[in-house]
Amino acid sequence: MFQPRGERHWIIPDAYIPPTSAGKLESHESICVLNCSSEEALLKITIFFEDQEPLEEILYVVPGRRTKHIRTSSLTKKGKSIPLGVPYAIEVVSDLPIIVQYSRLDATQAENALMSVIAYPIK
Amino acid sequence: MFQPRGERHWIIPDAYIPPTSAGKLESHESICVLNCSSEEALLKITIFFEDQEPLEEILYVVPGRRTKHIRTSSLTKKGKSIPLGVPYAIEVVSDLPIIVQYSRLDATQAENALMSVIAYPIK
Amino acid sequence: MFQPRGERHWIIPDAYIPPTSAGKLESHESICVLNCSSEEALLKITIFFEDQEPLEEILYVVPGRRTKHIRTSSLTKKGKSIPLGVPYAIEVVSDLPIIVQYSRLDATQAENALMSVIAYPIK
Amino acid sequence: MFQPRGERHWIIPDAYIPPTSAGKLESHESICVLNCSSEEALLKITIFFEDQEPLEEILYVVPGRRTKHIRTSSLTKKGKSIPLGVPYAIEVVSDLPIIVQYSRLDATQAENALMSVIAYPIK
Repeated sequence: MFQPRGERHWIIPDAYIPPTSAGKLESHESICVLNCSSEEALLKITIFFEDQEPLEEILYVVPGRRTKHIRTSSLTKKGKSIPLGVPYAIEVVSDLPIIVQYSRLDATQAENALMSVIAYPIK
Repeated sequence: MFQPRGERHWIIPDAYIPPTSAGKLESHESICVLNCSSEEALLKITIFFEDQEPLEEILYVVPGRRTKHIRTSSLTKKGKSIPLGVPYAIEVVSDLPIIVQYSRLDATQAENALMSVIAYPIK
Repeated sequence: MFQPRGERHWIIPDAYIPPTSAGKLESHESICVLNCSSEEALLKITIFFEDQEPLEEILYVVPGRRTKHIRTSSLTKKGKSIPLGVPYAIEVVSDLPIIVQYSRLDATQAENALMSVIAYPIK
Repeated sequence: MFQPRGERHWIIPDAYIPPTSAGKLESHESICVLNCSSEEALLKITIFFEDQEPLEEILYVVPGRRTKHIRTSSLTKKGKSIPLGVPYAIEVVSDLPIIVQYSRLDATQAENALMSVIAYPIK
């Protein structure tokens, strides 16, 4: 049995899906999760906007002893997904401790730009 | 009622508004704030310079259950704004716990460069 | 005698070796370690994948009062190395406290993109 | 009187001065410090290498209520400075609490790449 590691609650204030791609790669963001435990972790992801109600509790499962690099554009809730080109923020709540990192590849221009942060853990 | 999350006091030592833009996008920085609570949060933003007195307590309101990605070039106090091309630092004090991330897009050259950090929380 | 500093256990959820390089520089990632102590530190590095069993406990030694910027492509265990172009995550366990930062240079396109995070310390 | 904020001891494991610049901007790194207190802070900066003895205790003063974005290429000790193109690590010790962020602009190629981290605080 492997122990869970990290925290159950993580925040990413600066999320944004660039609306266009000009190079070989496609602009995208990923919520990168590591689940160190033997058990699967159930994530509830909430999306906060600047001027509308949040999109709440999108479910996602990360198997035990696995990482998942979750493309934000793949997340949906009752047919709703995250709009492109809109500033938003992400909350990840998990039933087991996990570790969360957020990365963005911006290919608006032909050459790429990258940014990454470890999400902020709520303890 | 939703609980506030995070901290009331955050620091960003490396801030800088690139003076020029060459590509499709405009060089800019954002202070990205998430307010998880049901109540609005009142922010006081202080700007520190290398060789002059700080520009103190610029006010900004973030509504409850919302994020705001605040462009630093939009901040003003008594008609003063942050000069371009000058190294500075940012302090954010809030009456409610929030979470703060800082990101910069540098479009000095036609292709973009990105950087981002979670601000440093003072506990 | 110099004291060890930092933590014994660090996590990097977002790792990825870009499969191609187009510019003057080669795409690569580094696990950057500082060992402040007088003694050498023995690291055990485990690689987690999205859909296969982890590659466990690759050994690495960092001498006392030295830094090592470890290229992930150089890590091997029983002839196995980390595949290119595959999302993965990294766990670093050390017998002495150390400090760990992760950086990636993506030269998929001719112009470079950089990202970096301080790894997440498990306390 | 303003209170000092932050920590007295900070680590940056991944430092590197790119040896060349091809664009309009020059490749460089900065150690960005904010001193929130009314008093000046005295910093002792130590540089760790992969395969030689550290360059110890370079002195630097940050005035009260000021930020300094210190170019690493400007640091010298008994005529020695940090060599270009060599992986190294940075330790900052201060007599007063401060906050430290590290940023690198890589202009090896004509288009720029940026990375930034809040340094790791030793508590």
